[in-house]
Amino acid sequence: MPNSLNKSTILRLARYFRVLQKLKTMGFVKVFSNNLGDAIGVTPSVVRKDFSLINLPGNKRGGYNIDTLLEQLAVILGKNRPHEVVLAGCGKIGTALMEYKEFAREGIRIIAGFDADPARHRPDAPVPVYDIAELGPYVREHGVQVGIIAVPDSAATQVLAVMQEAGIKGVLNFAPVELKGSGNCIIHNVNIGLEIETLFYLVTITNGIGAEIGSSDTAM
Amino acid sequence: MPNSLNKSTILRLARYFRVLQKLKTMGFVKVFSNNLGDAIGVTPSVVRKDFSLINLPGNKRGGYNIDTLLEQLAVILGKNRPHEVVLAGCGKIGTALMEYKEFAREGIRIIAGFDADPARHRPDAPVPVYDIAELGPYVREHGVQVGIIAVPDSAATQVLAVMQEAGIKGVLNFAPVELKGSGNCIIHNVNIGLEIETLFYLVTITNGIGAEIGSSDTAM
Repeated sequence: MPNSLNKSTILRLARYFRVLQKLKTMGFVKVFSNNLGDAIGVTPSVVRKDFSLINLPGNKRGGYNIDTLLEQLAVILGKNRPHEVVLAGCGKIGTALMEYKEFAREGIRIIAGFDADPARHRPDAPVPVYDIAELGPYVREHGVQVGIIAVPDSAATQVLAVMQEAGIKGVLNFAPVELKGSGNCIIHNVNIGLEIETLFYLVTITNGIGAEIGSSDTAM
Repeated sequence: MPNSLNKSTILRLARYFRVLQKLKTMGFVKVFSNNLGDAIGVTPSVVRKDFSLINLPGNKRGGYNIDTLLEQLAVILGKNRPHEVVLAGCGKIGTALMEYKEFAREGIRIIAGFDADPARHRPDAPVPVYDIAELGPYVREHGVQVGIIAVPDSAATQVLAVMQEAGIKGVLNFAPVELKGSGNCIIHNVNIGLEIETLFYLVTITNGIGAEIGSSDTAM
């Protein structure tokens, strides 16, 4: 397995995968690097470099075979493995995530939620919600590797510590506080308020000075 | 107003702002670039460069004055302007955003929601929800500049077109499809499923090969 892929590369591979799935349903058999590049907003040479990193050489005249790409990318992206996650914090955002239909389409499953508020506990629900005190033991028992944090910012650091100690290796954090990983735990922070603030700032200066801002791309 | 700030710089400025607010409530008066750097995970020289970009020279021995930093950053980040946004799509994620308490703390206000489903229309609610057909006229009438898209992926492109035509300049997109801005509209894509997939991939290869992966930082 290639070991030189960083997060940006992985995100591009996952995006190629989605575009390729759509092309396949449209009956396409082959695709060129410039089409894929256009679809996700990168140059054809980036596409070719990404595919050569994962040992998928193209054919300049014929393009890439879509089925081959999909098969290889599925292995790289772990599409064949179940993606089971735990959720800490079952407020508005957490509940929305528990009921988020897109997850099922992507093979992602929240297997349990945890909350400090007894009023939110639902041990018998399809996605059970337990006391936050159960989080560590549950993660250990089930060998869960990825967790979502959707608790208030005041509780986020402590929840992260519990997750890490129980063996969680990857965290998606929605709490409006910048969490940092320690050891070999990887954290992705999604700060919705910060994203909107940034948009307002960029819009304001773009209005004021024309489109001089270079960064209109997504950083995710 | 400085015009050379890209999205990464703005995000850092917004993060400094939050750390500084906390330090202020703790009674701090001065702060050094290395403390701020530690708090948001960058080197002191990045902090100093960011502050010199916005004409905030520090004092090597005394550090930065927190009140001065907060005042200047508030102007740069537009903290003094109301951040009013519209929301297209009032399903699970959209509703969670409408009720998201963190927004109020950050001065962000969703002033109206729009949905294609009549069962979701609430014209008299505190945050009214109207028919999606009203989106364009509403944006024009109220001069709204920033919108959130939380519709299914099949509707996202069309909603974006309506927003852009009505004058929206910045969009935060939660639909699981990569939207691209045209003209001077800036799009930030937050693809939650993709984030989780990426975490699984990174966790898997980190487990397999030790911690050789370089990108454990957030890309937001």
